[in-house]
Amino acid sequence: MDTVTSLLNSIADVGRDAQRGGYTRPVYSTAELDLRSWFIEQAGRRGLDVETDRNGIIWAWWGAPQPGALVTGSHLDSVPGGGAYDGPLGVASALAAVDELRSRGVAPLRSLAVAVFPEEEGSRFGVACLGSRLLTGAIDADKARNLRDADGNTFAEVARANGLDPAQLGADPEALARIGDFIELHVEQGRGLGEDGPAVAVGSSILGHGRWRLSVTGEGNHAGTTLMADRRDPMVAAAQIILAVRQVAAAQQGARATVGRIQPVPGGTNVIASRVDLWLDARHTDDAVTARLVETIHGKAQKIAAFEGCAITLTEESYSGTVHFDPGLQRQLENALPGAPVLATGAGHDAGVLAGYVPSGMLFIRNPSGISHSPEEHVEDADADGGAAALADVLEALL
Amino acid sequence: MDTVTSLLNSIADVGRDAQRGGYTRPVYSTAELDLRSWFIEQAGRRGLDVETDRNGIIWAWWGAPQPGALVTGSHLDSVPGGGAYDGPLGVASALAAVDELRSRGVAPLRSLAVAVFPEEEGSRFGVACLGSRLLTGAIDADKARNLRDADGNTFAEVARANGLDPAQLGADPEALARIGDFIELHVEQGRGLGEDGPAVAVGSSILGHGRWRLSVTGEGNHAGTTLMADRRDPMVAAAQIILAVRQVAAAQQGARATVGRIQPVPGGTNVIASRVDLWLDARHTDDAVTARLVETIHGKAQKIAAFEGCAITLTEESYSGTVHFDPGLQRQLENALPGAPVLATGAGHDAGVLAGYVPSGMLFIRNPSGISHSPEEHVEDADADGGAAALADVLEALL
Repeated sequence: MDTVTSLLNSIADVGRDAQRGGYTRPVYSTAELDLRSWFIEQAGRRGLDVETDRNGIIWAWWGAPQPGALVTGSHLDSVPGGGAYDGPLGVASALAAVDELRSRGVAPLRSLAVAVFPEEEGSRFGVACLGSRLLTGAIDADKARNLRDADGNTFAEVARANGLDPAQLGADPEALARIGDFIELHVEQGRGLGEDGPAVAVGSSILGHGRWRLSVTGEGNHAGTTLMADRRDPMVAAAQIILAVRQVAAAQQGARATVGRIQPVPGGTNVIASRVDLWLDARHTDDAVTARLVETIHGKAQKIAAFEGCAITLTEESYSGTVHFDPGLQRQLENALPGAPVLATGAGHDAGVLAGYVPSGMLFIRNPSGISHSPEEHVEDADADGGAAALADVLEALL
Repeated sequence: MDTVTSLLNSIADVGRDAQRGGYTRPVYSTAELDLRSWFIEQAGRRGLDVETDRNGIIWAWWGAPQPGALVTGSHLDSVPGGGAYDGPLGVASALAAVDELRSRGVAPLRSLAVAVFPEEEGSRFGVACLGSRLLTGAIDADKARNLRDADGNTFAEVARANGLDPAQLGADPEALARIGDFIELHVEQGRGLGEDGPAVAVGSSILGHGRWRLSVTGEGNHAGTTLMADRRDPMVAAAQIILAVRQVAAAQQGARATVGRIQPVPGGTNVIASRVDLWLDARHTDDAVTARLVETIHGKAQKIAAFEGCAITLTEESYSGTVHFDPGLQRQLENALPGAPVLATGAGHDAGVLAGYVPSGMLFIRNPSGISHSPEEHVEDADADGGAAALADVLEALL
């Protein structure tokens, strides 16, 4: 019987990023495709029936695919230079929990599926939880088809290259109806679980969060021949906007706002950029506060750009309101795991998208570094294996 | 007989950049290799003997390769999203000038070569004029071999893949001695040539300029789970450094300083960067002022980084002092082109590197937009053809 640790070890070499450290496994990259094959093989070894639906979600069934099943799982894609656990821990734990349930001799009263959702991080096409958003219809299929990666490929093109029919992407009520309850196990992304206490927590809510793209347009020119006074440099405007983002977020209790990605066009050392795109990630428990925050940043960015002779556009790429997990399901998780703390999280998850449609819940596993989306993310082996046992407890109680 | 315009038209589809606009033709990319093949074919059509030397410089000879020849030429690589003229105009004009000299029945007293220099822009390996720096020994061969492109390939690896022997890269006194005089024709990169005056100018000097890489290291973390107060965000420090660069340059008469390239690591929307690399391009006619400028920026950057809990390193990637072209050669150019204005330029050129070793001079062709390193760069057809005729006049006077 595989442990979570041995399962994760078996993919420890897939998608390592020598430059950034950690792992870079964008959806439908060689690395992520290798992980999908690995999952399908692992499911096959367990006699689970595997199907990939029309949105690229992989389902591995213990029992017949049917409405009202119990579903658990997570994702295999990563941010650039991410850790080993964000995503794969939930998938490996689900496989290990199936082994554990069987070794306990549990005879399920309903079917169980392990699901793998594509593009949870949104690091390739810019929309987080793209798989669950497509499944539920939370994103318009046309909008999804036209998303582009950094190389200019549309999601439709990449989906087709990976065996999907672009025309069939989008809301899939039949597949969704199969989810009676959804449980996602995930590495904790802060320091919510201290060193000396329990290593598993039950999720209560997900902070509202969204992504916006700010495009600052100025005048591209030669870095050597253009006098400082003659410039309309969008990089200088972008720099002021980054500082405004920090200032506005720091002034608002509980708010978080980040610019982690910036892309000057053309991006040459000896070239004044003609355009700078930057991406804003903003979060707050109160959706109205998040909206006000973004509006304030937009207003400041417009003033900054105008002063620098530049123009800006702000485009919402995705938004998810604050999610409170199903209270009944949450109580069942708490009952199955006595003494487990209850935690809110600032990170988005497929469970958060699904929560708008079906009862969903989450388990968080201790991350002693408190660091996430970085190679510093960590889970102790004992906690990982304990997490799979806790997931088995929860699934057993719900089956 | 081909005109400059028809020669440029024949490569108008090579390396177009649909995303940025204009052309992206980094050295040894498919696009630049296509242009090299095109040049070799054009030289062959004219009965010129073509050789590629051990640094990847292509030479097309009219007459036997021998010391003291007259050499003209430019480069075929471009910045990302550059214009159609920066580089190729000088190469196409050299070919057209050979045609013109022959149609005039000029019988050269010495050999003439048309040369194409690789990686003039430094947009792939970070060092501008890499080909001429290698030829002259202005860059250490080991340093050049270890330069890396954005994908992590070393220059040695890329050179080998393109048929060069990495061990043979570097100073080539024999090839250098073949250059008796070097003339580079180039599109003007500012508004030095007005609408109503002459379309061709003679170059007098090149502003000293260099490139420095600033790496700002903080703590990578999750954009949703990390409180604003707990962050050591290198992007916020980088933004303040970009503003300091502008402030320091604007306060110094005649100085130009630019950040046109920035690279957060890992670069995800929902990730606080762990490191941000940014590149500084700084220029001034007085080399001591440039040095002081960079020192001031470095000091400010250190203070900013410390305040944000980050660390910085500053690395010089290349530096070229202010170049005054050979006065005797410049006088010959002025005599061959009566009434042509004399212009200094803020842009670097292979002619500037060669000027430290052999008599070198430049001709500039009017660019009505005044914009450079951008698709907006422009040359009127009549000015391009007039430029080739002017180059032929100059070469005839010098042959």
